[in-house]
Amino acid sequence: MAELSEKAGVPVATIKYYLREGLLPPGERTSPNQAKYDDGHVQRIKLIRALMDVGGLSLATVGEVLAAVDAGEASPHHVLGIAQQGITTSKQISDDGSKEWALATVQELADRRGWPCKDPDDLVVQALVGVLCTIREVGHGWYLDKLDAYADIADQTADLDLEGIAGVESLDRIIEIAVVETVLGDKLLSVLRRLAQQRASEAYFGQLAGDGE
Amino acid sequence: MAELSEKAGVPVATIKYYLREGLLPPGERTSPNQAKYDDGHVQRIKLIRALMDVGGLSLATVGEVLAAVDAGEASPHHVLGIAQQGITTSKQISDDGSKEWALATVQELADRRGWPCKDPDDLVVQALVGVLCTIREVGHGWYLDKLDAYADIADQTADLDLEGIAGVESLDRIIEIAVVETVLGDKLLSVLRRLAQQRASEAYFGQLAGDGE
Repeated sequence: MAELSEKAGVPVATIKYYLREGLLPPGERTSPNQAKYDDGHVQRIKLIRALMDVGGLSLATVGEVLAAVDAGEASPHHVLGIAQQGITTSKQISDDGSKEWALATVQELADRRGWPCKDPDDLVVQALVGVLCTIREVGHGWYLDKLDAYADIADQTADLDLEGIAGVESLDRIIEIAVVETVLGDKLLSVLRRLAQQRASEAYFGQLAGDGE
Repeated sequence: MAELSEKAGVPVATIKYYLREGLLPPGERTSPNQAKYDDGHVQRIKLIRALMDVGGLSLATVGEVLAAVDAGEASPHHVLGIAQQGITTSKQISDDGSKEWALATVQELADRRGWPCKDPDDLVVQALVGVLCTIREVGHGWYLDKLDAYADIADQTADLDLEGIAGVESLDRIIEIAVVETVLGDKLLSVLRRLAQQRASEAYFGQLAGDGE
């Protein structure tokens, strides 16, 4: 276990905790006080840390995702759904009129694009409703004229995400990839967008300053 | 002030706090105990709430962004940079070898795409370094083969973001829009991507199940 701790880069106490919570399968017992752990254990620990540290998932949600992965029978679509609900935090909405308008906007968007989920109880739908309400509340409703243009980009991204899964044989691996792509891909895209914005901002405002002087 | 509190949807104590901290300009004094607030105050309060509640910016960072907006002389590019640094939280990296590799990857990417910033001290660059290290640590380095494809999407998004600013006359308004787009646009895209993933996942795995049975 000391060796596993070193390889995975987490304290022994953390490994014991994961074993107790069932997040990590037990090692192969070689004597009453010794167990053998393999590379699968190292990878699993790193996946748990990534989901928690980078994705911000709670231990309970990580447990649900891994249980679904280990069960093997659940469809990838279902497991991806569990991870999504865990990653998504929705904002409380106070104004019922706004909420109704936003939900209708989401449902119309989903219809236009052939997106399957428009269930008001879905946490992802609720999160989108929250974002739309906030955008309108801060007086930037014009931004939503570009909703379809951003949805186009989201569709491109999702197709690229799913491409990573095509051709992978093992169901466990498919699910692991989908979860990693969802959680880490989100951070990756958000940071790449910032760097691209720096480029666009410099190009645009640099030009303005040049024109103005 | 009671009227402002109602219109902006925040308690009077919060408004007093914003006034004291200089986030909100004082109202026009009409008597020793009375001041007049206008729609600009309502909009400003809503912007503060959105930056904090949705964007997760600290009060100190909101203060810096607003001070730069109010100064008026700062370039939009500079103010956008302040907001970006506030929004971005980077992960601690333990392994120096990984960090070196990730920084080189970021710098090569920036060169290929003509992105201006590759300064290792920039918080956005640090955040990207953190994400790349994590992706490799969890054993999904293959994902980075698609880095340029995701960067393409980021460039498209940034151009769309900047489009929202083109044609706007007031510098204050330009900066406000850029900040709102950065902060709220991030949430918007992340949630849209989830809905698009549900579509792609259903289409892909639905087809697989159909093929397999």
